[in-house]
Amino acid sequence: MTNRQILLVSRPQGIPEPENFRLVETLLGDPAEGQFLVRTHYLSVDPYMRGRISDRKSYADPVALGALMVGGTVGTVVASRHDRYREGDVVVGDWGWQEYALTDGAGVYRFDTSLAPMSTAVGVMGMPGLTAYAGLLEIGKPNEGETVFVTGAAGAVGSLVGQIAKLKGCYVAGSAGSPSKVEHLTKELGFDAAFNYKDSQDYAAAIAEACPQGIDVFYDNVGGPVSDAAFTHINLHARVVICGQIDQYNAEQPPQGPRLLWNLIVKRARVEGFLVFDHGHLYRQAQRDISGWIKEGKIKYRETIVDGLENAPAAFIGLFHGENLGKQLVRLAND
Amino acid sequence: MTNRQILLVSRPQGIPEPENFRLVETLLGDPAEGQFLVRTHYLSVDPYMRGRISDRKSYADPVALGALMVGGTVGTVVASRHDRYREGDVVVGDWGWQEYALTDGAGVYRFDTSLAPMSTAVGVMGMPGLTAYAGLLEIGKPNEGETVFVTGAAGAVGSLVGQIAKLKGCYVAGSAGSPSKVEHLTKELGFDAAFNYKDSQDYAAAIAEACPQGIDVFYDNVGGPVSDAAFTHINLHARVVICGQIDQYNAEQPPQGPRLLWNLIVKRARVEGFLVFDHGHLYRQAQRDISGWIKEGKIKYRETIVDGLENAPAAFIGLFHGENLGKQLVRLAND
Repeated sequence: MTNRQILLVSRPQGIPEPENFRLVETLLGDPAEGQFLVRTHYLSVDPYMRGRISDRKSYADPVALGALMVGGTVGTVVASRHDRYREGDVVVGDWGWQEYALTDGAGVYRFDTSLAPMSTAVGVMGMPGLTAYAGLLEIGKPNEGETVFVTGAAGAVGSLVGQIAKLKGCYVAGSAGSPSKVEHLTKELGFDAAFNYKDSQDYAAAIAEACPQGIDVFYDNVGGPVSDAAFTHINLHARVVICGQIDQYNAEQPPQGPRLLWNLIVKRARVEGFLVFDHGHLYRQAQRDISGWIKEGKIKYRETIVDGLENAPAAFIGLFHGENLGKQLVRLAND
Repeated sequence: MTNRQILLVSRPQGIPEPENFRLVETLLGDPAEGQFLVRTHYLSVDPYMRGRISDRKSYADPVALGALMVGGTVGTVVASRHDRYREGDVVVGDWGWQEYALTDGAGVYRFDTSLAPMSTAVGVMGMPGLTAYAGLLEIGKPNEGETVFVTGAAGAVGSLVGQIAKLKGCYVAGSAGSPSKVEHLTKELGFDAAFNYKDSQDYAAAIAEACPQGIDVFYDNVGGPVSDAAFTHINLHARVVICGQIDQYNAEQPPQGPRLLWNLIVKRARVEGFLVFDHGHLYRQAQRDISGWIKEGKIKYRETIVDGLENAPAAFIGLFHGENLGKQLVRLAND
């Protein structure tokens, strides 16, 4: 049968461009004994992938030129010669930007759609969900009544961080990149305050207004000047969770900024970077909690969906222009 | 009786200068009921004092212009109308840059000279000692076999950090600012490696050579370019202890440098600033341990001593030129 895939064909300079990717048609055989064939329903595009397509030294080897683009995926089993998977099973994994995949099941997990819809398996119930849950609760450790400030607050991770912090009794503020995102945060997601950083001349003043009691937990998805300003507004014994630095991912030169370390002494503060892969032991617990909160109406999630594999590069590139509200997905087949 | 004091009379721009201080003679009365009179034997001069004489916002109010210069002190009681202190007692406190002080005992503690000589009360057995002990053991948490890298390694704090890390079974490397300091670290204090940063063109290469297994605990007294390079050489789950940033204290403009946060994600690393004042509960334990290690010959300490109150400003200023080996003291009276 014919499969369609998207390959990485060149490394971006700065923000990725469509030319860095190429759509190809390939042939796929039938499952061998112990294999099964998956049809992709949703691809996840995420900021971290920018690091994976760079040749900058990082936590994982870069995607090779000419290789299938990586990414989280959810789909259904359409043919199986595997003991544990049957036709119709909904499975989640990392088989990348392709319409079909043959797999022996390594790194693939069954997803329980009674917990939440299929698309959430790569969003609020998947990697971004666990990222928010583990980063906030295990590293940020917010206490009731404390102030939590989140950058990239309208994104897949940030919007969940803020809502979980509200559930824990915190005052929550966030920054986002458009008036409609700011309204979404305060009107729909229950944030106490939010501001549009693209509309601000003075980030320190905007943060001071949004966080009148200072910041106890700073959950940073963005980096750069907004984060610099947040560092000047942290409280004694603050915890700063470095989840992402999307502002930096496309930098051509080693980015420079104000030195932040002195203020960590003054405030006896802690800054910690983390990767969700180190927190896999919390995956089931996070899914159980988040599913429950969604069903109780305590957590809302948004998805920005584009259709068609050929639109995956544009959806990915759009992340760096702030085009997504909540989780950015590419739909290849309906549920 | 006549007392001599040193006052702060202007705020330094950049590195402090002698003109920022003034020696004055004042009159001191006899102790009232509940007071005692102390004769200062040693003044401590420390890098943190640079922050105290700036009007930059920090963890403590700045020393007012015209006020007595602050600082740690040790001396003997020469007259007492206080229940708990008698003539001849050796006491440690913070009565600042003056030859005599009247006190009601608040913030003053008896020092046991059977543990170590009087001068160490403001050095290896005092605030710098506790700073090294608590910062390394409570925040850095080194494990046997790990690599500990210390900046300002020949200073009062750094030299103790390195030696305690050796006692805990670590590989220890450090940076210092002269060939004789480097030799002192490796030949006398047991450091596994050390380099002279003033003689290095490529800090990253110097650190890579000194720390062939990468850095697990980075104890930073200095900040600036050497520390930037150390951040690029940390291992997975590294702990960075921000004790001091002497490279930054005299900055006229907000210092700029490479952004470090992305690397914290890649390495899942933690950076934590601390102040010794938060670790006072460890004071007696640190004194007991350090005194024992000194007596067993496991810990060596050096003091750089100048005589005379009038030389205190020069001794303080010399810290920023790297003139001290180990603890810098000003002696006002012999033991």
